Amino acid sequence: MTMNNKGSLIVLSGFSGSGKGTIVKELMSRYSQYALSVSMTTRAPREGEKDGEAYFFVSKERFEEEISRGGLLEHARYVDNYYGTPRAYVEEKLGEGRDVILEIEVQGGLQIREKFEEAVLVFVTPPSAKELHRRLTGRGTEDASSVANRIRRAAEEAPFMRDYDYILINDDLDLCVEELHRIVGAEKQKSLRRASFIADIGRELADLSAEL
Amino acid sequence: MTMNNKGSLIVLSGFSGSGKGTIVKELMSRYSQYALSVSMTTRAPREGEKDGEAYFFVSKERFEEEISRGGLLEHARYVDNYYGTPRAYVEEKLGEGRDVILEIEVQGGLQIREKFEEAVLVFVTPPSAKELHRRLTGRGTEDASSVANRIRRAAEEAPFMRDYDYILINDDLDLCVEELHRIVGAEKQKSLRRASFIADIGRELADLSAEL
Repeated sequence: MTMNNKGSLIVLSGFSGSGKGTIVKELMSRYSQYALSVSMTTRAPREGEKDGEAYFFVSKERFEEEISRGGLLEHARYVDNYYGTPRAYVEEKLGEGRDVILEIEVQGGLQIREKFEEAVLVFVTPPSAKELHRRLTGRGTEDASSVANRIRRAAEEAPFMRDYDYILINDDLDLCVEELHRIVGAEKQKSLRRASFIADIGRELADLSAEL
Repeated sequence: MTMNNKGSLIVLSGFSGSGKGTIVKELMSRYSQYALSVSMTTRAPREGEKDGEAYFFVSKERFEEEISRGGLLEHARYVDNYYGTPRAYVEEKLGEGRDVILEIEVQGGLQIREKFEEAVLVFVTPPSAKELHRRLTGRGTEDASSVANRIRRAAEEAPFMRDYDYILINDDLDLCVEELHRIVGAEKQKSLRRASFIADIGRELADLSAEL
C-alpha cells in the first residue's frame, strides 16, 4: 500500500439518514476513477435486491469459511447477520489504480483503520441532530419507534467520529460530493503515500551533489 | 486553534528552485482567502527590496528582543543572519478566518509542527533531482559553485520531507496551485478541526434520543 500508482482505500461511514448512499452514487456517476466495493452478507435479500449489486448474499457457513481463510478485509455481526468486505475485489481494483470506496459501518471502518494505515476514513453527518431527525421523519417510511432506534444508534456512533480522518457535513449534496472528491485528491499528495518518491529524490540529490 | 471558523496555518517549504515562490504568488492572486506572512530578518535589504514586502528588516538587537518576548512563531539562523515569523500578524489573520501561508525553511517548518498540531506542512519539489539541476542551471544567474551549493543543501533537506504532511510535485505550475488549494480545502474537513462539532452533535443526539 505504499506505491504511488495504487489507488486509495476510502471508507465511507455515517449516520443512517446522513445521505452517504446518495453521495457515493453521485460520486461514481461523476468520476470514473472510483470502484465501489460490494459487501457480503448472510441476511436474506429484500424485494428487488439482486445478488452482486448492493450485496453478495451467502450462507452463514460460506461466510464463516471466508472469515477463516482471511478472505474478508473486515466483518461485523448485526442482530443475527454477518456483513463483510471481500478482500480480492478491493485488492484487484487498488492494483489497477482505482480508488475503492467501502460504504461500511463504524465497526468495520475501525477494523480497516487498524489494518491499512493509509486508508482514508470519512464520516458523513447532517449539519445537526435536529436535521437528522427531520430527514428520518421526512422519509415518511419510518414509524416513530424506527426513527427513535436510528437516533439512538447515531448517538452511540457519534463518539467514533473522532477516529475518522474527515468529517463531511452533508448540507448540500452537490458540494458534498465535490468535497469528498477533493479529499481523495489531496490524500494522494500525502508524504505517507510518497515514501518511495522521497527516498528516490534523496538518493538522486546525494549522488548529484557528490558529482558537482 | 480548534475553532471551525479560524483559518488554517499553512507552512510551505521546498528546495531552492522548486518554484514555491511562484506557486504562492499565483495562489494569492487566484484566491482571496489567503494571507501571506511576512518574515522578519536581520540581513541587509538587497537592491529594490522594500521593508514590509518580502521581509521586515530589523537590527540584531530588535530581533533578539522579539525572540525573548515570544513575539516569533519560529526563527532560525542562517550564516550570520536571523529569520523569523512575527506571531501577531499570523494570529490576527487566522482569527479573521484567513488561511495564512508561511513560506519558510525546513528548520522553521519543524518548529511550527511542534507548536501547532493543526498546521498543514507542504513541501514543494521538482519531479526529480535532474529537473532541479536543470532549473537551477537554466536560470542563468547562478555560477557552478552556487548551483552545487543549492543541490548540496537540497540533499540535506530531503530527509525532512517525511516530516511534512504533503509532498507537492511541481511539474506543472497551474496544476500545482490547484492541488495546493485543494489540500487546504480538504484539511478543513479534518476531524481534528471538527472537534467542537463532534462534541455538539454527540450531545444533541444523546438528548434527542432520551426524548424520543
